[in-house]
Amino acid sequence: MRKDVPKIVVARLPVYLRDLSQLRDEGKEVTSSQELGKRLGISPAQIRKDLSHFGEFGKQGTGYNVSYLIEQLRRILHADRNWKIILVGAGDLGHAMVHYTGFRKQGLHIIGVFDNDPQKIGQRWGELTVMDASTIEDFIQKENVRIVILAVPAKVAQQVADRLVNAGIRAILNYAPIVLHLPNGILVEYIDPVVHLQYMTYFLE
Amino acid sequence: MRKDVPKIVVARLPVYLRDLSQLRDEGKEVTSSQELGKRLGISPAQIRKDLSHFGEFGKQGTGYNVSYLIEQLRRILHADRNWKIILVGAGDLGHAMVHYTGFRKQGLHIIGVFDNDPQKIGQRWGELTVMDASTIEDFIQKENVRIVILAVPAKVAQQVADRLVNAGIRAILNYAPIVLHLPNGILVEYIDPVVHLQYMTYFLE
Repeated sequence: MRKDVPKIVVARLPVYLRDLSQLRDEGKEVTSSQELGKRLGISPAQIRKDLSHFGEFGKQGTGYNVSYLIEQLRRILHADRNWKIILVGAGDLGHAMVHYTGFRKQGLHIIGVFDNDPQKIGQRWGELTVMDASTIEDFIQKENVRIVILAVPAKVAQQVADRLVNAGIRAILNYAPIVLHLPNGILVEYIDPVVHLQYMTYFLE
Repeated sequence: MRKDVPKIVVARLPVYLRDLSQLRDEGKEVTSSQELGKRLGISPAQIRKDLSHFGEFGKQGTGYNVSYLIEQLRRILHADRNWKIILVGAGDLGHAMVHYTGFRKQGLHIIGVFDNDPQKIGQRWGELTVMDASTIEDFIQKENVRIVILAVPAKVAQQVADRLVNAGIRAILNYAPIVLHLPNGILVEYIDPVVHLQYMTYFLE
């Protein structure tokens, strides 16, 4: 049944998981599609429908067991495993990513940082040392890395992405402000704050 | 006619604008929905339909004048104005935002940075000095700021957002990993890399 799940549904699951984790941190043991819906600004019916793609997680009238639903969502999203991630581009943004504590607790581990700037190669970033970009392919293959955070300038992003995919990368979180052209089956997600800001200024006077 | 434009269409306009700007930088003077579609992975028919909400921008058979379409999209998105933005939260991510050169060329100007950490207040960040968060309201009102980039920890994000909205903020680019509850009419966009990464790990073996 997994194949039929619309992407937009899958995209909401991490948001559900994040909010459920917050509920658990607040000491809540049971919740409902009503409560979640109110917290997330999503209709309770939508939440129930989204979850129903993956099974039965609550009982009519008694709601969802928070810990159980967290566990199930983590399983569905493969967030119950440890994922090795490399970061390419050791600029300010990359620096922020490496020091962000929100990844590790989700099993997302940045295990390598790469740049081609001799000034940056060898820098100590927390537990990591910035490595020479020419060694990326070897690292990907040796460590069996599938996910990359791409934080390089737009003008080199396509070329770097091609190299990464050739070396075995399957998923790219792309911070470079361009659309990447990659073979079918390679996953790409985009983060560009300018796009979000311009979406909002459209609605501002 | 603007009121009827679906949000999903508006959300694509900044991506069109970004790509057209890149085409112009490459020296292209004319393009087509075919070319744009291929570059962006969007069907040419979709692009034509999206743009048709706002007028006639190309001639049958001759395509779009790149500079003209850029100018029109900037006007539609209100990207032809200068927008004052404040950043709240002077952590690593905030630091990267302030030093990101991609904002200014789009008329997006971070004019103030705030934090409540005495260690950070007074720090010089490029042309800016980190200011005491207790002075945010005065600053917003004095400078007539409408947009904020919120890069504070999740546990204080709602409370800070409430203060900002009370002071006159209308649009929030939220990097804190929680859903904010705000009055109708306040715009919020979310950026959470964990959500994007978990969306991708769903599809990975």
